[in-house]
Amino acid sequence: MDFSLPPDLIAVRDRTRSFVRDALIPLENDPRQGPHGPSDEFRRELNALARDAGLLAPHMPGEWGGLGLDHRGKAVVFEAAGYGLLGPLALNIAAPDEGNMHLLEQVADERQKRRWLAPLALGEIRSCFAMTEPHPGAGSDPSLLLTSYRRTPGGYVINGTKWLISGAEGAGVCIIMARDEDSPDGEPRATMFLADMDRPGIVIERTLDTLDQSFPGGHCVVSFQDLVVPEEDVLGREGEGFRYAQVRLAPARLTHCMRWLGAAHRAHDVATAYARERRAFGKALIDHEGIGFQLADNELDLHTCGLVVAHAAWVLDQGGKGRHESSVAKVICSEAIWRVVDRSLQVLGGLGTTRDTVVERIFREVRPFRIYDGPSEVHRWSIARKLAREGVQ
Amino acid sequence: MDFSLPPDLIAVRDRTRSFVRDALIPLENDPRQGPHGPSDEFRRELNALARDAGLLAPHMPGEWGGLGLDHRGKAVVFEAAGYGLLGPLALNIAAPDEGNMHLLEQVADERQKRRWLAPLALGEIRSCFAMTEPHPGAGSDPSLLLTSYRRTPGGYVINGTKWLISGAEGAGVCIIMARDEDSPDGEPRATMFLADMDRPGIVIERTLDTLDQSFPGGHCVVSFQDLVVPEEDVLGREGEGFRYAQVRLAPARLTHCMRWLGAAHRAHDVATAYARERRAFGKALIDHEGIGFQLADNELDLHTCGLVVAHAAWVLDQGGKGRHESSVAKVICSEAIWRVVDRSLQVLGGLGTTRDTVVERIFREVRPFRIYDGPSEVHRWSIARKLAREGVQ
Amino acid sequence: MDFSLPPDLIAVRDRTRSFVRDALIPLENDPRQGPHGPSDEFRRELNALARDAGLLAPHMPGEWGGLGLDHRGKAVVFEAAGYGLLGPLALNIAAPDEGNMHLLEQVADERQKRRWLAPLALGEIRSCFAMTEPHPGAGSDPSLLLTSYRRTPGGYVINGTKWLISGAEGAGVCIIMARDEDSPDGEPRATMFLADMDRPGIVIERTLDTLDQSFPGGHCVVSFQDLVVPEEDVLGREGEGFRYAQVRLAPARLTHCMRWLGAAHRAHDVATAYARERRAFGKALIDHEGIGFQLADNELDLHTCGLVVAHAAWVLDQGGKGRHESSVAKVICSEAIWRVVDRSLQVLGGLGTTRDTVVERIFREVRPFRIYDGPSEVHRWSIARKLAREGVQ
Amino acid sequence: MDFSLPPDLIAVRDRTRSFVRDALIPLENDPRQGPHGPSDEFRRELNALARDAGLLAPHMPGEWGGLGLDHRGKAVVFEAAGYGLLGPLALNIAAPDEGNMHLLEQVADERQKRRWLAPLALGEIRSCFAMTEPHPGAGSDPSLLLTSYRRTPGGYVINGTKWLISGAEGAGVCIIMARDEDSPDGEPRATMFLADMDRPGIVIERTLDTLDQSFPGGHCVVSFQDLVVPEEDVLGREGEGFRYAQVRLAPARLTHCMRWLGAAHRAHDVATAYARERRAFGKALIDHEGIGFQLADNELDLHTCGLVVAHAAWVLDQGGKGRHESSVAKVICSEAIWRVVDRSLQVLGGLGTTRDTVVERIFREVRPFRIYDGPSEVHRWSIARKLAREGVQ
Repeated sequence: MDFSLPPDLIAVRDRTRSFVRDALIPLENDPRQGPHGPSDEFRRELNALARDAGLLAPHMPGEWGGLGLDHRGKAVVFEAAGYGLLGPLALNIAAPDEGNMHLLEQVADERQKRRWLAPLALGEIRSCFAMTEPHPGAGSDPSLLLTSYRRTPGGYVINGTKWLISGAEGAGVCIIMARDEDSPDGEPRATMFLADMDRPGIVIERTLDTLDQSFPGGHCVVSFQDLVVPEEDVLGREGEGFRYAQVRLAPARLTHCMRWLGAAHRAHDVATAYARERRAFGKALIDHEGIGFQLADNELDLHTCGLVVAHAAWVLDQGGKGRHESSVAKVICSEAIWRVVDRSLQVLGGLGTTRDTVVERIFREVRPFRIYDGPSEVHRWSIARKLAREGVQ
Repeated sequence: MDFSLPPDLIAVRDRTRSFVRDALIPLENDPRQGPHGPSDEFRRELNALARDAGLLAPHMPGEWGGLGLDHRGKAVVFEAAGYGLLGPLALNIAAPDEGNMHLLEQVADERQKRRWLAPLALGEIRSCFAMTEPHPGAGSDPSLLLTSYRRTPGGYVINGTKWLISGAEGAGVCIIMARDEDSPDGEPRATMFLADMDRPGIVIERTLDTLDQSFPGGHCVVSFQDLVVPEEDVLGREGEGFRYAQVRLAPARLTHCMRWLGAAHRAHDVATAYARERRAFGKALIDHEGIGFQLADNELDLHTCGLVVAHAAWVLDQGGKGRHESSVAKVICSEAIWRVVDRSLQVLGGLGTTRDTVVERIFREVRPFRIYDGPSEVHRWSIARKLAREGVQ
Repeated sequence: MDFSLPPDLIAVRDRTRSFVRDALIPLENDPRQGPHGPSDEFRRELNALARDAGLLAPHMPGEWGGLGLDHRGKAVVFEAAGYGLLGPLALNIAAPDEGNMHLLEQVADERQKRRWLAPLALGEIRSCFAMTEPHPGAGSDPSLLLTSYRRTPGGYVINGTKWLISGAEGAGVCIIMARDEDSPDGEPRATMFLADMDRPGIVIERTLDTLDQSFPGGHCVVSFQDLVVPEEDVLGREGEGFRYAQVRLAPARLTHCMRWLGAAHRAHDVATAYARERRAFGKALIDHEGIGFQLADNELDLHTCGLVVAHAAWVLDQGGKGRHESSVAKVICSEAIWRVVDRSLQVLGGLGTTRDTVVERIFREVRPFRIYDGPSEVHRWSIARKLAREGVQ
Repeated sequence: MDFSLPPDLIAVRDRTRSFVRDALIPLENDPRQGPHGPSDEFRRELNALARDAGLLAPHMPGEWGGLGLDHRGKAVVFEAAGYGLLGPLALNIAAPDEGNMHLLEQVADERQKRRWLAPLALGEIRSCFAMTEPHPGAGSDPSLLLTSYRRTPGGYVINGTKWLISGAEGAGVCIIMARDEDSPDGEPRATMFLADMDRPGIVIERTLDTLDQSFPGGHCVVSFQDLVVPEEDVLGREGEGFRYAQVRLAPARLTHCMRWLGAAHRAHDVATAYARERRAFGKALIDHEGIGFQLADNELDLHTCGLVVAHAAWVLDQGGKGRHESSVAKVICSEAIWRVVDRSLQVLGGLGTTRDTVVERIFREVRPFRIYDGPSEVHRWSIARKLAREGVQ
């Protein structure tokens, strides 16, 4: 067991930290941000800044312009990026693009990579991932998938409605999960398709108003109305949709942990600085145990999350699928990060409820993370099921 | 001990419930609501609806047009009103007006009542309460009060800056807490003043962006720049400001509990209805213990809050100051209400993070309640201090 | 709503408090207490003291020598008695006798009452209630009941094994729950029987070593080996066993809450007194917020429990079955009481882990209360099921 | 970062696991264990078994008969040993001996090592560490130290009373912490002394009854009455007592985490096995989410503790003092371990409250760990103080 970081990774981390502190945090109140995230113009400027800093798409292999970070490397750099609200977007490692790039890298064929992965890695386009459906369709339970496809000569026709599709508005390409309309209820056979967002038959019904507001393009309701997809745009092989979903989900969950862990550190730092400065009842807030203990608990939670994420990343780096480990990390981190941010807001008192610090925004951003990529309940259920099946090891 | 409600109170409660359900909930998505609350036009329409329903200002004595509810009566009716996001505003029992009316009724002289309490009770004007100050002024620790007054012939001149002044934008009158500039540091002598908001020397610097968005007029930064107040507009007696603050605070804390308890019930009902309808993994969500137990915990918390509020209201009705009881109720309720709403959002899953149900709004509204009217830490501290001083009884 | 207590109840409560403080607490370290509770000799002495104080069996109607307390009266007096570890036993209101007396009073015929209820109320004998069975028999799920009876001329023959039968060793009489051996699996038809413990066929296999040690007679494994019970010793009517179990369980759960609430108050008082006296790092422990907040939380929990118990008692006094209310009260109180006692032990530090204060014993006594009379999980499940069935009200 | 274990460590761990499972667990109900731990005869038998298995004192360097495990090695092997209640004692790595051996190895001179460390490492004698004092002496706040020494020709005379001295009864040697009687109040100058327990002037006043019962010799009150200690028996240098206490405390806290983590694993395994076997309401307990989620939470807590301990051990292995890291690990682990064991007991239901499984004993053993070696409150306070002093890094 060794917890030290290689020097070159430390160097990238430190460069990322400086970039976030010097270039991005000053931009956090840029007016080109609305309830559905930063504008595309603003995003492109941020990407340009990161490119100039040599930090664009650090998770991608060199051939796609990145630094080829392994999962442990991502743990370190993504957390450093997440310290700034704009960091992940600037570095082009934000959800859902980062997970989509990972999926394409693993599963797409060369033509598809050139067509979609290349511009994605460069920040020329954005992407979305259309899996989740409104009631009574597929949410936590993928077997409820309703969006379906049928075969036609040379391709497929897709129909159905998705929702909470992050970044759909303004995206260049969509990865669509649909079931073979002939597969039986309860045991659907699913396939992933790639489609440019401007194809006829893709309709953005509306952009949802949501608690979080940092995703460019927001979270949308998207319908597919007789969308025609040619055979060559199937992602991977027909019928393998659920398997590919796992390819995407385990690492994607983990990168969420990394980024939001950075945001939690930020909230904690803001609260700590305030508690050292602000006085009440004769001493600094932090010298009141009622406040100091909350900040101490933050330290405990942040420390724990760092270790849990590093361990899961190491499992992935060893070639493990990390499905169990990423579930474990997701529950621990999403709940600990939430506690950290909630305590930070509390420590800030009235100030915490205002947008005069970044904590109010982080607070709204991280709450949904206890739900997306599998709510805590689903992960606990799957951990318990593993235990029920296998017993203790 | 008797937990039954008198029939006439049950009748008012049921009328309030019907009014909320039939008249107000359908209006909750009215577009005349922005980040700083409902517009004044919308508020007046709501007040008119309540007036027609015989439910305007039910907490006020008959002479001011109300129903003369005692504290226990308020507990019942305010909770029923709080079930609708617009309920308290419609009934004219929202903060800060409700607390200000209570304070004026207790402390103002007849002239002041006719001039300010009468139009407030009728909903013709709104009011604000200017006590809290930005760092390094008075927040939880009132001894840090910086806004000061000095005597002049026939009156006073006030200078200072307040913040988080709810409802200041658009208010007709302000109650101002300021210290005698000659009183010693750490032991200020404070006085309350009444001032029309359009007087020269009252400047609304800005309206803060905040997590909660239901207060008409938002939460503002207000400065007093050589504001002249005539002698007759001192509220009560000079030098009694801190005592009057307690007159206002104990019941005001409790009415917050009542209203937000209604909102928590609403969130719980929305989540329960969803969990009974939505299916995953072969059964309704509510039949998954991971969900059902959260809703059961909601029931426990809601039950507890109801009892705690009723008890504290009874203490006030017996003529007690209820300072300790309202502290106890404030901590218990603000934290339990928060848990209920947080669980409700979690049960709703992805839907909970969107504004497609009212829960996302309630979630943002109730979080600050763990902070305003005394953060949990200050109330725990005062409960512990009482114990340290008096020991167990 | 009225939270005041009638003067005569206050008088009984105050007499109980004095009796506990002056007569019982000094006896708490009497050596006639072992891992399986106080000796019978000691118990009889305690009963005599209570009798002399006019406080024996205050829950029983006057005809059985008691004070005829209603449920709200019990809430007040049982809590006062529970403040002393020996209080419930001395007053003859301890489990399982108190619940058994209640059951007999409700269901037994006159002959049975004279034979068993009379000496029970006087403390001449003790009793036990034989329902729970070891795996794979009936625990939380009564449908798993394995102990069975078959009809014979003039009576019944019972076979089976029970466990965790509190007070069996030394009891004079046993109430036995058994299933009709002809009833179908999963839907047993159950009957209650009365049997003197010295009858042939009743075997105490062993007394379990348990975390709690205050029950006289301990918790035993009892087997029935062709136990013959005459027809006249059926309690109530054949086949009504499960219904009678509910008659016993709802109030019995509540009286547990009452008694342990008194014990929690005691632990809190011991911890508070220590925290006011003991100094560390320059001030009294209680003046450290890390300690003072724990004691404040105790106050919140104790306050809540008192209200919840009073409310459920009021429901029973109105003639309600109180099944739901007693479930709610059981979960809230068993968990809150546990938190109070756990915090009290923590506040006492090293001293808390020793038997030099009573808190260590209370700690071991109250932990099982989160399990017996329905573990928290079963009550949450039944609260959730009610919600699933009925929706919100 | 690398989470893999070296093969030779895996081998020792696996041998320890086998030894615990095959040789020690069958002995856990050996009657030679009382309220104050295993008898000395039993302890010696256990040490002999470990010696035969090549596992005695694995933490000691080879010259003292051990395996020379570093801190990370201890983390792995001590946890494996702690899985059995008798494991740490058998391997001679139990508190307080293990910490005392560590201290002697670091600080004692050669003569002292030969005289006391050698027989300690072999299990020929036991030891105790006399630091904690009863109120108003030194508990969490070492500045309150009352036991004092004065210089005499050729040595020192010590007077004072200690308590909660684990293992004092039957120990061969004692390490005594005392203050120079001439040092000022609030800033004592402290020294450590070594003394054979049979010296005149060492009096074991009584053995305390405590919640935990596994320490051989129990926890005692020990007084020093004009105890004469020759100069050569000062441990290290005079006046360095507090510094040496830190040498002992940081690693000792961590080894407690290791051992009790093993016990928590055991409790979890017992509960899991039961929950997979026991059925209620139509399925195995573990298939009820209300149970399965508790076991899932156990998995999360156990995983977290493992990582936190490994990290702190790594810091020590790098030569760090690890004072902060061991504080962090102590709070996280003592609280997480407690939750795991509390949940395990709850999952076992009635069975959990009995000594029919080992969980009831583990439950009593681990509760004091939230208090000894620094209660959670003191560690949170020191983490908060570090933050107050240094700010975020």
